[in-house]
Amino acid sequence: MSIATATERVFNFSPGPAVLPLAVLEQAQRELVCLPGYGMSILEMSHRAPGFLDILASAKRLLRELLAIPENYHIVFLQGGSRLQFSMIPMNLLRGQSGSAEYLVTGSWSKMAVDEAKREGKVNITWDGKATNFDRLPKAGELKLAADAAYAYFCSNETIQGVQFATEPHVGEVPLVCDASSDFLHRPLPIEKYGLLYACAQKNAGPAGVTVVIVRDDLLARSQDSLPGYLNYTNHVKEDSLYNTPPTFAIYLMKLVLEWLKDEVGGLTRMHAINQQKARQLYDAIDESGGFYRGHAQPEFRSLMNVTFRLPSEALEKEFVKEGEDRRLDGLKGHRSVGGIRASIYNAMPSAGVEALAAFMREFKQKKG
Amino acid sequence: MSIATATERVFNFSPGPAVLPLAVLEQAQRELVCLPGYGMSILEMSHRAPGFLDILASAKRLLRELLAIPENYHIVFLQGGSRLQFSMIPMNLLRGQSGSAEYLVTGSWSKMAVDEAKREGKVNITWDGKATNFDRLPKAGELKLAADAAYAYFCSNETIQGVQFATEPHVGEVPLVCDASSDFLHRPLPIEKYGLLYACAQKNAGPAGVTVVIVRDDLLARSQDSLPGYLNYTNHVKEDSLYNTPPTFAIYLMKLVLEWLKDEVGGLTRMHAINQQKARQLYDAIDESGGFYRGHAQPEFRSLMNVTFRLPSEALEKEFVKEGEDRRLDGLKGHRSVGGIRASIYNAMPSAGVEALAAFMREFKQKKG
Repeated sequence: MSIATATERVFNFSPGPAVLPLAVLEQAQRELVCLPGYGMSILEMSHRAPGFLDILASAKRLLRELLAIPENYHIVFLQGGSRLQFSMIPMNLLRGQSGSAEYLVTGSWSKMAVDEAKREGKVNITWDGKATNFDRLPKAGELKLAADAAYAYFCSNETIQGVQFATEPHVGEVPLVCDASSDFLHRPLPIEKYGLLYACAQKNAGPAGVTVVIVRDDLLARSQDSLPGYLNYTNHVKEDSLYNTPPTFAIYLMKLVLEWLKDEVGGLTRMHAINQQKARQLYDAIDESGGFYRGHAQPEFRSLMNVTFRLPSEALEKEFVKEGEDRRLDGLKGHRSVGGIRASIYNAMPSAGVEALAAFMREFKQKKG
Repeated sequence: MSIATATERVFNFSPGPAVLPLAVLEQAQRELVCLPGYGMSILEMSHRAPGFLDILASAKRLLRELLAIPENYHIVFLQGGSRLQFSMIPMNLLRGQSGSAEYLVTGSWSKMAVDEAKREGKVNITWDGKATNFDRLPKAGELKLAADAAYAYFCSNETIQGVQFATEPHVGEVPLVCDASSDFLHRPLPIEKYGLLYACAQKNAGPAGVTVVIVRDDLLARSQDSLPGYLNYTNHVKEDSLYNTPPTFAIYLMKLVLEWLKDEVGGLTRMHAINQQKARQLYDAIDESGGFYRGHAQPEFRSLMNVTFRLPSEALEKEFVKEGEDRRLDGLKGHRSVGGIRASIYNAMPSAGVEALAAFMREFKQKKG
């Protein structure tokens, strides 16, 4: 069944929820009515049953292995997405601290994080990319942080603008906090540089409905007992993500994605190389178009995950999206707040999809340019 | 494939996540790799794509139809489960109000709600079932509420103790707030009696990871702009559950469950009759056992969803659970906080499962009594 179905699938360039590895979907499909050996669907299984506890432990183990997460970091699986992390981070890490929180505003997502943090405490905008319409990121030496800052917050990849940090910003001893939602697991990460890193699953790691939080042990001491129970990281760490019923199916699916990354892809170094190769094809098509396609990001800050560009007119952009759909290249419309074209090419986007899009871009330019 | 798999399934008496209708699982399985007509899995579909917007609208329409939800009530789909609602309710409905929140403590879940509400404002325990170990509920006339109370909170079914309100408690003009997580959709409800009603899906309505909130329009005026964005009901109502990426797959699956309730079961009046019939079989087995099985709840407050009882000894209880498992009757162990046996027989538990359990109970009593 799945082979016939698979051939009807489009190439899905949506920014998230986004394409998942076909092998993962096929395994989930086979197991959906009855998880082998358990007599029930994973959708029906108690979060305290040995079957689910095994899945939870495997997901954690695979994350720890793929990202080489040190022992003094905890991994928890939460709900509520980035929006809830925007609040939980300052509630846990800023309340009761003397220093301010330092925010790097590099696009739409980090801007939203600032708006929520301001409700919780003193926030300082360390860097703001607004002046150049968020087409670049801070360079080494550009950041001036207060030494007593509670933490420094950045978004490693801005999906809407398509700018991405290739390496971590330099923040000295200040705990670094990262929204890695849209490029989590796309390359190996030096976790020891981070105080807290979180990622919603629905771009690179699984379906919508689960958020991974990786937090350094010493930072948990900041969480005050007066916090609402669900919003206190310590509760989730203490109960090993079973403080309440976790999103069991989403965690199961993430486990399958992690197995795919390890066994099929061969780890994050290999994944990174593939991602670089995929992105290069699209940026080459932009750069070779003689200005027909104009990339939004300055070249050195281009995202490997979200390739954003404009065409000579909005009419042509509409035509491009429409003609793409006719070729089963889906989800190319840019975010409603900035327009243009956005091709999201997360880990699970096959090279064949990128090749088809690059070929289409050249052809469309040939015809209309 | 699904028929062969289905025959290996157990009867799952887990309290939640819990049994789902087999027809729902089979449909989800067929569609998992490629949702017909969309070229991708529902797991990969953007929450702003027409395909998902249709699913969201259908889920809302079906809920409105099945429960006859009046037009002045909003329906939103959130994350974070009951634990987050324990905090969101007082944050939105108690902050800034002069009256206190009145809580009916009828078991473990309402007790946890009190603990969280106390962080947010003035709470009054209107009624407490602790004196009789939560084996009964308040009767008409027993409740004395302050007339200016911000709201009155109750849990319609306590899964751990197995006590259930057959009708709503009388609270006069005070807005009634209900945790209906474990008996949502088990009978028709007079929604107009409620100010706010919420339910996590993972017992009667779908998988873990989505919480339905039904809230009366006028109560939204209480939510203060200073609330963290995700925790403000108004944001979710304004954005029609798309304030952030919703748990798309869980909403899709809930839609399938709602279709099953409407088309296969024939609506909530019929569902209620079936539930009464199923519960009666187990309570009969208890009552006819000559004291071998002792039901926890006083008969008039017995739950139709969670049948809780003890055996003459803990050793026999262990044996009962073990022997049940051997007969593919799974998940009968009571909650670790109270012990004993709990058979959760939500909407999707087939009558055949209840019959098998009742027969096993009689046989076990015969052998060991």
